Amino acid sequence: MDRCVVSIDLGGSHAAVAVVQGAKLLASREIELDHAQDLRPVLDIFANAVRELLRELQIPAKDCLGLALGFCGLADGRIGRVISTNKKYEDAPGIDFNEWSMRELGLRFAIENDARMALLGERHAGAAHGYDNVVMITLGTGIGGAALIEGKLLRGKHAQAGCLGGHLPAKVGGRLCTCGAVGCSEAEASGWALPIMAKEWKGFEHSALAQREKIDFRALFELAKAGDRVALEIREYCLQVWATAAVGLIHAYDPELIVIGGGVMRSANVILPHIQQFVNEHAWTPWGKVKIVAAELGNHAGLFGAEPLLTGNV
Amino acid sequence: MDRCVVSIDLGGSHAAVAVVQGAKLLASREIELDHAQDLRPVLDIFANAVRELLRELQIPAKDCLGLALGFCGLADGRIGRVISTNKKYEDAPGIDFNEWSMRELGLRFAIENDARMALLGERHAGAAHGYDNVVMITLGTGIGGAALIEGKLLRGKHAQAGCLGGHLPAKVGGRLCTCGAVGCSEAEASGWALPIMAKEWKGFEHSALAQREKIDFRALFELAKAGDRVALEIREYCLQVWATAAVGLIHAYDPELIVIGGGVMRSANVILPHIQQFVNEHAWTPWGKVKIVAAELGNHAGLFGAEPLLTGNV
Repeated sequence: MDRCVVSIDLGGSHAAVAVVQGAKLLASREIELDHAQDLRPVLDIFANAVRELLRELQIPAKDCLGLALGFCGLADGRIGRVISTNKKYEDAPGIDFNEWSMRELGLRFAIENDARMALLGERHAGAAHGYDNVVMITLGTGIGGAALIEGKLLRGKHAQAGCLGGHLPAKVGGRLCTCGAVGCSEAEASGWALPIMAKEWKGFEHSALAQREKIDFRALFELAKAGDRVALEIREYCLQVWATAAVGLIHAYDPELIVIGGGVMRSANVILPHIQQFVNEHAWTPWGKVKIVAAELGNHAGLFGAEPLLTGNV
Repeated sequence: MDRCVVSIDLGGSHAAVAVVQGAKLLASREIELDHAQDLRPVLDIFANAVRELLRELQIPAKDCLGLALGFCGLADGRIGRVISTNKKYEDAPGIDFNEWSMRELGLRFAIENDARMALLGERHAGAAHGYDNVVMITLGTGIGGAALIEGKLLRGKHAQAGCLGGHLPAKVGGRLCTCGAVGCSEAEASGWALPIMAKEWKGFEHSALAQREKIDFRALFELAKAGDRVALEIREYCLQVWATAAVGLIHAYDPELIVIGGGVMRSANVILPHIQQFVNEHAWTPWGKVKIVAAELGNHAGLFGAEPLLTGNV
C-alpha cells in the first residue's frame, strides 16, 4: 500500500494543506493568505494545520514519507530551496525548509515550483499517467507551464527551464508582459490580459462584454456561445494564441502529450478540439501526433505531486 | 596531446570532410552534393575522402578516436541513427552507420544533428568554451538551433528537443513555415523568408532592394546602412524577431549564453548590441543577464563537435 505524504500547495492568495495517499486525498484544509507578506509566519500556520490533519486522521508523522511544498515562484527541487519570488513571500529564498520541517514536524522535506508539482500530480494520478514526456499548461490569470522530458522535470541551471511555458513569445511587438518580456502567450491571452485586450478591441462598446462588471473567460465563452461578435472574435484570437503556444511547446520540448488545466477548461469542449486540430496540422512531429488532453485533478493536481517528488528520481 | 578525430559536416548541397585535433583543423575537403539524392552512394565518397586525408597526413586510422557525422536533419546521438530527413537523403534512417564506418574505415562512429554539432564545436573550441548552459542559433537560409543544459545536449524522446529553435512561434497568425507551423521565427526572419517579406513590404517598388537581382541579408544590411527606408524597416523587423526569439529561447532553456552564428553575422556589429539590449531589458532572469555572443568557428563549427560527441558524456 502507498504510504501517506503531507502536501502543501502554496499560491499567492491561498494555500491547500493535505494528506495524500496514492491517488487519494485523505484530508485537506484551505488557508486564506490574502494579507500574508512574509512566508515565515505562514510556515507556523502550515505546521499547525499539518499537526491537526495528522491527529484527525490518527496518522503518526513517522508513518508519512515526508512533506512536499509546491511554491508559486521559482524553486529548485534538487536543492530544496526557493530561487526567486514574484512580489510576495520575499523572505522565501533565505529559508531552510528542510530544517524547519524536521524540527517542527519530523518530516523529510521537498519543494518545487507549483506548475512542476501539478505536472507531477497529473502524471501520478491524473491525465498524464503512464507518460514520460509531457508538457503541462495552465490557462488561468496567468499561463503556467512545466515540462517533463524522459521522466525528468526540466529545470536548467537556474531552475527556470520548462516552467516559463506561458512566457514564450506569441507575438513579436505584442503586449508587455508582467514578466518583462514582450508578446508572451500570457500577455496575449490570459485572464489578466483579457480585459485589457477586450477594451481595445474594435467594436467593444457595442458588445455585451462591455456590460459585464467582470470581463473574464467565463463571460467571454458564454457571450461567444450566444453569438456576440466581439466575444467570438476575441475567443478566436485566444484559441489561436493557445494553439500556437502548444505548437511552440511541442517544438521546444518534444512531448508525447500536452495536458491543459486552468479555470478556462470549463470550456474544454471548445478549446481541446481546436488545439488538437491545429497541432495535428501544424506541429512538426514526424514520429506521430501529440495528444492534447484536459487536466483531471483541477486545483488539487499539485497536491498529488508530493509523492513522486519525495520518492521518485524526477 | 589530443587525439585526432575524423569529422564530417553534411549539409543539403555540400559536405566538409576533415581531420581535427583539439581546436585545430589538420586537413579538410569540401564535397559538392547538389545532385546527390540518396546517402548510401555519398558514404562511398566520404570513405574515399577520409582514406585520402589520413594518407596525406600520415595518420593511421587506429590513431583516431573515431568518426563523427553532423547530419542536416533529425539525428539521435544516443542511438547513432538518423530519425527524420527533410526531402533529401531519404534512405538515411535505414542506414547502420556504425557498421559502415567500422567496415570501411575501422573507425568508431557517432552522429548528431548538425546544429547540435555546431554547438558542441563552439563549446569545445569557440565562443561557448567553458559554458555548460548554452543555446546556439544559426541565422541563415533557415534558422537552426540547439540547446545544451547542464552540460548535456537536450534531445527528448524523438530527438527533436532543442534543435527546433527557429521553429518556436514569433507571430501568431504569421507566415506559413516550411516546417508546417505558422509564424515561426524562421518564417518571419530567415534567408528564405526575406525576399517573400520584402516583396510584400509597403513601398518595396520604390526601394533600392527592388533593383537587386538577389534579395538577401547582405543586400538588406548594405542598403539599410545606406539609408534606404524600406531596407531599414525590414532590418528593424528582423532584429525584433531575432531578439524576441532570443528571449523565448532563454525562457525555454535557461542558458547563461546564447551563441549566434550564420552568414548574417557579417553584420554582428548591428545585430549583437540590438539583441543584447533587448535581452537585458526583457528576459526574465532574476539570477543575472544572459550573454549574447557571435559564433567564432563559422562553417567549421560542426567539425569541432566531433571530439566531444565521441568522447564526452554529452
